[in-house]
Amino acid sequence: MVVGILGGGQLARMLALAGLPLGLRFRCLDPAPDAVAGHVGELVVGAYDDPEALRLLVRGVRLVTFEFENVPAAAADWLQAHARIAPSPTALAIGQDRLREKQLFRSLGMAVPEFRTADSREQLHTAVGEVGLPCVVKTRRLGYDGRGQVRLRAQERPAATIDAAWEALAGPGTGGLIVEQFVDFDRELSVIAARGRDGSIAVYPLVENEHAGGILRRSRAPAPDVPARVVRDADAFVRAALEHLDYTGVLTIELFLRGDTLLANEMAPRVHNSGHWTIEGSVCSQFENHLRAILGLPLGSTAMAGDGVATMVNLIGELPARARLLALAGLHVHAYGKSPRAGRKLGHATVVGHDRAAVDAIAAEVARLPLAAPGDWGFAG
Amino acid sequence: MVVGILGGGQLARMLALAGLPLGLRFRCLDPAPDAVAGHVGELVVGAYDDPEALRLLVRGVRLVTFEFENVPAAAADWLQAHARIAPSPTALAIGQDRLREKQLFRSLGMAVPEFRTADSREQLHTAVGEVGLPCVVKTRRLGYDGRGQVRLRAQERPAATIDAAWEALAGPGTGGLIVEQFVDFDRELSVIAARGRDGSIAVYPLVENEHAGGILRRSRAPAPDVPARVVRDADAFVRAALEHLDYTGVLTIELFLRGDTLLANEMAPRVHNSGHWTIEGSVCSQFENHLRAILGLPLGSTAMAGDGVATMVNLIGELPARARLLALAGLHVHAYGKSPRAGRKLGHATVVGHDRAAVDAIAAEVARLPLAAPGDWGFAG
Repeated sequence: MVVGILGGGQLARMLALAGLPLGLRFRCLDPAPDAVAGHVGELVVGAYDDPEALRLLVRGVRLVTFEFENVPAAAADWLQAHARIAPSPTALAIGQDRLREKQLFRSLGMAVPEFRTADSREQLHTAVGEVGLPCVVKTRRLGYDGRGQVRLRAQERPAATIDAAWEALAGPGTGGLIVEQFVDFDRELSVIAARGRDGSIAVYPLVENEHAGGILRRSRAPAPDVPARVVRDADAFVRAALEHLDYTGVLTIELFLRGDTLLANEMAPRVHNSGHWTIEGSVCSQFENHLRAILGLPLGSTAMAGDGVATMVNLIGELPARARLLALAGLHVHAYGKSPRAGRKLGHATVVGHDRAAVDAIAAEVARLPLAAPGDWGFAG
Repeated sequence: MVVGILGGGQLARMLALAGLPLGLRFRCLDPAPDAVAGHVGELVVGAYDDPEALRLLVRGVRLVTFEFENVPAAAADWLQAHARIAPSPTALAIGQDRLREKQLFRSLGMAVPEFRTADSREQLHTAVGEVGLPCVVKTRRLGYDGRGQVRLRAQERPAATIDAAWEALAGPGTGGLIVEQFVDFDRELSVIAARGRDGSIAVYPLVENEHAGGILRRSRAPAPDVPARVVRDADAFVRAALEHLDYTGVLTIELFLRGDTLLANEMAPRVHNSGHWTIEGSVCSQFENHLRAILGLPLGSTAMAGDGVATMVNLIGELPARARLLALAGLHVHAYGKSPRAGRKLGHATVVGHDRAAVDAIAAEVARLPLAAPGDWGFAG
């Protein structure tokens, strides 16, 4: 059977690579004719809200899923009328709106960073005054990988900076702005879980994430040295969210850890970069479990493969020299087939093993490699 | 870059699934328009010796490999004149000829079952007389999965049976017949290894195989309870074969174990069904290592993933009920997208873990599952 995916980037591509061994095939819709999921399935090129493109996507397709949460509401509604879709429009709507996310998290008893909304320049000044500096101003919608946000540092006269933030961020489709207290967290974590159509839930080991420039750089699982109570809290929280949303598929929640206290940052109603290590690091990957979930099949084990540990590093902007990368012992390489561009996620690499320090040491080698010469990887750039 | 593959079955498909994460793309040539490697790359439909089809296969392709050894010599020669090919025509020629295989094995100091060749009915009678009963009569060429062979049991008057074997097996393209002593082996083993363009070699742990009706049913790695000397002998033997052939890519040699003595049965100059467990069971699979080898890249580790053990069972003729199969704990499912047919390899399933008995027990559940209802897997049948 053919599964439809809105979006044809690396997440759709890895969903397809996980689903092909289950006998599935894939058709993706993406505006880019060179969308990399087109290497492993059929690609419909068109805008996400183009009725003709959506019609082509669902022809003969009974199930559609998403590789991103910023699905135009009209597209989600149209798809729901023509196929089974998962996750639900409700989950997508919450996942694309920072305000509704925070309201959900609070309703589930989860602490969130202090915040205020702002729909005008004046409200933004008021909101920053109430939240205090430092803070982060974000669009309610359309943000990802550090885009759609401006950090305001502690300073004497923030008025000009607030105006600049308004100019930079306000605009159609953003849903207004939200001012969040800057959390001086100790660590960033994420919890990834799958929920089946029958309500069964499988939670992956907690992940520790490190960002730079708003982009994920490294994920380690299980998150090292996290108190058992924190692990239990994260597990209970993601289960509560899945059940509250009557969710089907993989859900990711990003968390801050400050001392022994968890704060919920945001959620992604989909497979997530911080779960790429699950391809080799867990018994059943986030990609396969997402497909199992939305197909109504039994979930696979989320245990660490071989009771080991895993470290994933992103390959951003440019790929390392291919032969040098493949020479690193035990490293699993995932190049997405995308051409190089500053800040672009071109691939990732995962190391699994039993010794945390040894695994991290191999992963750290990646950043020290020379960059690929043009043509080294055999595709554009 | 695009890698060409002669053949578009499950081996080509799994090569592609292993190579896509390395940024590779694939084009396969196969006479069947529904060849399953077409799900993960481009498919050229045509005969293996059709010059026009071969021309389409190599357009823009600098490297061609093979999913089977029975490559027409003319096709191999043509391909070699138009692209880099691996493994070499010499290795292919030996791998498709049981006589040349045995001569190679003997020249490397390896014991082989007693044998005689027979190019006529009279010679067949003589050969059976010299080898003795029981024996196996095989075509020199074009045999696989138990096809192209007839077993002659001990009996008083074998003349009619020998005539029947001649009628069944002799024919154009078979290269004549070969009569092999029937080896009353204790166990069937295989050794799989990769050799890079730079001569580096990586050998997978020895595999134990179980056949029924001439078709592989179960493979277990590392082969349980094999004396260390036997493991060393197999390792030394495959290394000698790789070096003698100046081989590039993955080579498989099937072995018989009788007592503590190894006998070489046959070789396959390619990835092999008895190595499918390497996808999850080893750090770097036979498919990825074949690609690394032929691309001149560093070989990946052939160690067992997580120092565990692995069991693979083939799914033959019909698939089990999908949800029941996926409910088996820790089982990795590989459905090839082929429609059911008696004796056809439709997929395989692999279990990895640390406890040999527990791993085998889960794998054994597969055979006890109800078969899939039509449409259960969502593709033809």
